[in-house]
Amino acid sequence: MGRWEPNTRQRLAKAALELYSERGYEQTTVAEIARRAGLTERTFFRHYADKREVLFDGSEELRALFVTAVAGAPGSATPIDAMAAGLEAAGDLFHDRRPFARQRYAVIDANAELRERELIKLASLSTAIAETLRDRGVEEPAASLTAEAGMAVFKVGFERWIAENGERTLSALMRECLSELRNVTGGA
Amino acid sequence: MGRWEPNTRQRLAKAALELYSERGYEQTTVAEIARRAGLTERTFFRHYADKREVLFDGSEELRALFVTAVAGAPGSATPIDAMAAGLEAAGDLFHDRRPFARQRYAVIDANAELRERELIKLASLSTAIAETLRDRGVEEPAASLTAEAGMAVFKVGFERWIAENGERTLSALMRECLSELRNVTGGA
Repeated sequence: MGRWEPNTRQRLAKAALELYSERGYEQTTVAEIARRAGLTERTFFRHYADKREVLFDGSEELRALFVTAVAGAPGSATPIDAMAAGLEAAGDLFHDRRPFARQRYAVIDANAELRERELIKLASLSTAIAETLRDRGVEEPAASLTAEAGMAVFKVGFERWIAENGERTLSALMRECLSELRNVTGGA
Repeated sequence: MGRWEPNTRQRLAKAALELYSERGYEQTTVAEIARRAGLTERTFFRHYADKREVLFDGSEELRALFVTAVAGAPGSATPIDAMAAGLEAAGDLFHDRRPFARQRYAVIDANAELRERELIKLASLSTAIAETLRDRGVEEPAASLTAEAGMAVFKVGFERWIAENGERTLSALMRECLSELRNVTGGA
């Protein structure tokens, strides 16, 4: 139980998700999560502020990744192509995490407070991406609309990925959704 | 202070918004709202469940209006055209309510709990519209993507309308945003 034991965060996250799935998020205590992981409560609180943070731990990483990819797209890229670069980066992040993502999604979907938190996360992502697009010289309302459209593709693509048992990657499904969005809005 | 006094709801809503703007949403009590409106607390609670409901009172009306317009679009309308009919209907609803909408927006923007509630309202609108599009025979993911894109147009158009002092109507601004969305996604 040393402070720097490798994988402590992952063990805690795995234990937490298992318990949230088995008995519900509200009914699970930090003490139970620590016990399931074979660790102490003190160790839990060295890694997470509370039991909710276990589920939203990756938000900052996701935001940084999106913003970096959008900002780093070639100067010649159109706003939607820069957005697409962000979606590709997000797809890579989740690449080998489908079982975890699916379990997390089910836990969040079952709890109103967690669904709210998830909506706030997406709204804040959208705001950050719109800002990054404006930094690239994209004007309003194009920047906000591109960011919101990108979030729509992320959300719908993600839900399909969670629901599917097929071989298609999150990136492939988001590309498909982006193409479908172009289609419905009358684009190519 | 009779039960059926005309405009009681509006008087309460006006008093509530004034107080939320002046001293903050959290600091305002139902007793103060009733007093400002020259009514009793009992009358307040005959019209609204709590002080939050004053701000979200129109959610059901907006949803019904969107859904009816999308469902009622000609059978030959494309998904995005059906969505556009919903946006037009919503634009009409807010037509003469800009001062109220602007004040409401500022109150909501200043309070995390209210922002969450607003996000949930929009997410639930999107879900209802996607369902209506599926009822029109639109397949997934096109239905969800169209609904989400429509919500993006609604949200961005609404924020511009609130921010502007110009003469352009909400409907006009949403049409402009929809056209800009087609533009950024590579459409016409």
